[in-house]
Amino acid sequence: MAAPAIADWQTLAASKRAANANKIPAEWRLPSSLTAQFTETSTLNVLDVPRTCGLLTEKELELTENYHATELAHLMSSGKATSVDVVTAFCKRAAIAQQCVNCLTETMFDEAIARARECDEYLAREGKSMGPLHGVPISLKDSFNVKGTQSTIGYVSWISHPPASSNSNLVDLLFAAGAVFYCKTNLPQTMMTADSHNNVFGRTLNPNNLSLTSGGSTGGEGSLIAMRGSILGLATDVAGSNRIPALCNGVKSFKPSAGRVPFGGGAPPGRLGSPSSIVPVIGPMGWSVRDLELVMQTICDSDAWRFDENVLNIPWRRIQPTTRPLRFGLIRGHPKRPLHPPIARALHSAATKLKEKGHQVVLLDDKIPDLWESAILAWKFFLLDPKKTPVQHITASGEPWVPSIATCRFEELNGWEPSLDELWDMNLERAKIVKRYHDLIVENELDAVLMTGYNACAPPHDTYGVTIYTVLQNLLNYPSGILPYLKANKELDEPFFKAEAVYEPPYNPETFEGMPAHVQVMGKPMKDEELMDILKLMEGILEE
Amino acid sequence: MAAPAIADWQTLAASKRAANANKIPAEWRLPSSLTAQFTETSTLNVLDVPRTCGLLTEKELELTENYHATELAHLMSSGKATSVDVVTAFCKRAAIAQQCVNCLTETMFDEAIARARECDEYLAREGKSMGPLHGVPISLKDSFNVKGTQSTIGYVSWISHPPASSNSNLVDLLFAAGAVFYCKTNLPQTMMTADSHNNVFGRTLNPNNLSLTSGGSTGGEGSLIAMRGSILGLATDVAGSNRIPALCNGVKSFKPSAGRVPFGGGAPPGRLGSPSSIVPVIGPMGWSVRDLELVMQTICDSDAWRFDENVLNIPWRRIQPTTRPLRFGLIRGHPKRPLHPPIARALHSAATKLKEKGHQVVLLDDKIPDLWESAILAWKFFLLDPKKTPVQHITASGEPWVPSIATCRFEELNGWEPSLDELWDMNLERAKIVKRYHDLIVENELDAVLMTGYNACAPPHDTYGVTIYTVLQNLLNYPSGILPYLKANKELDEPFFKAEAVYEPPYNPETFEGMPAHVQVMGKPMKDEELMDILKLMEGILEE
Repeated sequence: MAAPAIADWQTLAASKRAANANKIPAEWRLPSSLTAQFTETSTLNVLDVPRTCGLLTEKELELTENYHATELAHLMSSGKATSVDVVTAFCKRAAIAQQCVNCLTETMFDEAIARARECDEYLAREGKSMGPLHGVPISLKDSFNVKGTQSTIGYVSWISHPPASSNSNLVDLLFAAGAVFYCKTNLPQTMMTADSHNNVFGRTLNPNNLSLTSGGSTGGEGSLIAMRGSILGLATDVAGSNRIPALCNGVKSFKPSAGRVPFGGGAPPGRLGSPSSIVPVIGPMGWSVRDLELVMQTICDSDAWRFDENVLNIPWRRIQPTTRPLRFGLIRGHPKRPLHPPIARALHSAATKLKEKGHQVVLLDDKIPDLWESAILAWKFFLLDPKKTPVQHITASGEPWVPSIATCRFEELNGWEPSLDELWDMNLERAKIVKRYHDLIVENELDAVLMTGYNACAPPHDTYGVTIYTVLQNLLNYPSGILPYLKANKELDEPFFKAEAVYEPPYNPETFEGMPAHVQVMGKPMKDEELMDILKLMEGILEE
Repeated sequence: MAAPAIADWQTLAASKRAANANKIPAEWRLPSSLTAQFTETSTLNVLDVPRTCGLLTEKELELTENYHATELAHLMSSGKATSVDVVTAFCKRAAIAQQCVNCLTETMFDEAIARARECDEYLAREGKSMGPLHGVPISLKDSFNVKGTQSTIGYVSWISHPPASSNSNLVDLLFAAGAVFYCKTNLPQTMMTADSHNNVFGRTLNPNNLSLTSGGSTGGEGSLIAMRGSILGLATDVAGSNRIPALCNGVKSFKPSAGRVPFGGGAPPGRLGSPSSIVPVIGPMGWSVRDLELVMQTICDSDAWRFDENVLNIPWRRIQPTTRPLRFGLIRGHPKRPLHPPIARALHSAATKLKEKGHQVVLLDDKIPDLWESAILAWKFFLLDPKKTPVQHITASGEPWVPSIATCRFEELNGWEPSLDELWDMNLERAKIVKRYHDLIVENELDAVLMTGYNACAPPHDTYGVTIYTVLQNLLNYPSGILPYLKANKELDEPFFKAEAVYEPPYNPETFEGMPAHVQVMGKPMKDEELMDILKLMEGILEE
């Protein structure tokens, strides 16, 4: 079944890393005196390194720090900035980020700057932009295919694969809308853990505190965007992969309803053809809700079906911003994974602010199906492949499992084997859960549900554990967004400490001090437009 | 596993039929001298019986024959007709139809007339209509649940079941929009054959020629609507069940993209929780495309997700009627099921008329995946239940299989047993087919695909066979519509006879003389609105 193990997988991986590192121009390199400090045991915050290292010009700092993607697109489309300048700035800053937090896999800097030049020339020649993302640099998780660039997705056995011969469907679509692709980013072995760590590219660190996880599976994006080495990134999500890195690194993300964004044409970590009822999606990560909306709107308004036979082919609806008081459900967590004090404080504070603004909050804790059981059901859907294809990709090279694989699973499923007969029952069980949430939302006339995306701020490497608060939205197929909100502060958090709670991962206030906290907002299925509007409203309330 | 066989299933079924027959008022009954002629071996055309039998008043004939549902809704909403008059007329006409072609299962005439009175009173009291379907009678396939009415769906073992305790989700939605439900209609044992025949209610006959099939699985609707005993009916469709009865009886139908119409809450003929990639849908049947659109628009604009947790929650888009020349793909059939001359003539004539109007037609025959193989793949998806639940429903009563069950299957699948591992491969195989059609449509810039829905007009009972021309749209999840067009005419059809073709079912011009032919028009996924527009345009061209 499996190919013979590759004799020396370490050498192969080291050679791949070295080849990629060599692509970073010498003049964009940080001194080794600095990079030597950036280890996975250091508690350094490196967010300021791009500004302090001296490699970026004032103009480059301005372009990478002062604008939303929406503004950059406008500046470039109106000729007030060139795409070459913008893209070069982000390439340089991404290179610096890479040297701090190891967030990149492949770089395409030369190709990106050449493409940016094409954008600028097109504008000059045609007198109009290429599209709504004219000249905008976008970073991609490594699992996206870009023609001519490799997609190993961290499997050592895939280092021998040739570069991709075609683009992911979404890459084609966004390219037609004017986007510039300049780098791909790190992810976990198998893409099924929350630590972006694999044996090809190593581990991505959290720029807020290098000793903590950047999250996964789109951790490279999370830390790159936090470093402002990217203004917009694209992330897949089947159990939280678009949202976990956002909440770990303190950026924003949006997981749409399944089918709204073209998913096809990427590099799959497992077997294609899954009969799972949980459908993976792609969503944007970035710094502002309006940037997330720019991406969603551009995709949905591009006649996306032309690019992807499985996309739902529905335009982005223009809705009036809501002005009426909204009704939020509130989920405060599950006893097996009680919220760490910083997260409990953020959730409490967000709910309080909403109420102060006249919105209503309805507690759902005792009304929803057991979150733990729901997550176990979701995990069964992820284990439906009798061939265990990801295992084959690992054993093919002889590489070991990364440590976090063992932590991101349910003991209840030890020894569980899938069967076609049980799959019918799993679908029925899922149907009951879906109906229960539906009925709660309809009966309580809810506009959205406020909850957490995780029970802690980004925890130490390899301790994230199971993702019960993010996989729920995949199981339900409800859209969801992450908004960073507040930061861990041991004094302010102290009132939220519960002596009787068994915190998992362990809660030590010192570990998390200063780390971003967050809230998650879950919308109604296919009402991605309405959820985006609610996220904008909440962004305003939480950041005022 | 199965309950003990019911000692005397015939007695039980006869008693159920007698009870239902007794609900038809004596004054609505046809003389037995007439009904004695209405047998499944007679070649009578009974479409004129409601007009000639003398049971309907001139007003009732006018209400049931002269208006589209859209017009009736307008007449009732504006107070120019009462719902009591309209509903009574259709109840009477449905009762007459039942005595001619055995199309009904349950009747709810008293409840319907009481509901109609409520509609009239509401209008008088509130000065506004109940909704877009104010007072409009709608007939339902027996598999829809209506609170207080039984849903045996033709299983003898279900005769002992209590009446439904809740409505199908779509029934709730349409009720809120003002609809009146007055009868349920016949369907095949297991709902998986094209002859609406079961051991509880017997066989539904085709009113154009009683010796021919009314189609299935929504054959009761097809023949009832053809008799104008209904102006609008609702039909499920997973392999053609909404379209086959339309083309057999000479009425129109629309199968939407999956998820646009609430499906939940009905009586399932098999096991719930199917992991099949083919999702069953519900679509309207009726006399005009604008009536079909009225139903679709009402459903999609009713915030359908409030009624059904699995519906896609997408409003009906308002589009401008197209005025540009369209591009149609043309599929002329598969060698294993060559088109009977009347069908080949209808398809040829429709394509010719489109070209005469300036539209373009692109032949796809040699470019599409093998239709026979695609249908076999689809059938595998229908056989995924290891428990073979429908078999249990049959054996529970000791009733025999109806004859058509043996004809609506693929010999290639004899002995085939489903497995979880193969399901992954089936999904991949389906994905390739879906991609191929997608690419053909995109590359050829097609607006729709013109083809047949079946290789013949309605054939003799129990000879319909496999449904390769309708299951394709379920496998692809493309919307599709049936338009009746031309009638079998042995002289005009003769040039389309091919001596070398092996017609299956056999082609004898005398058998089919005068029977409705048809075309099928397949649209792009989720572009139900655009397809409806194209169907309107074609309806105009074909009927001018």
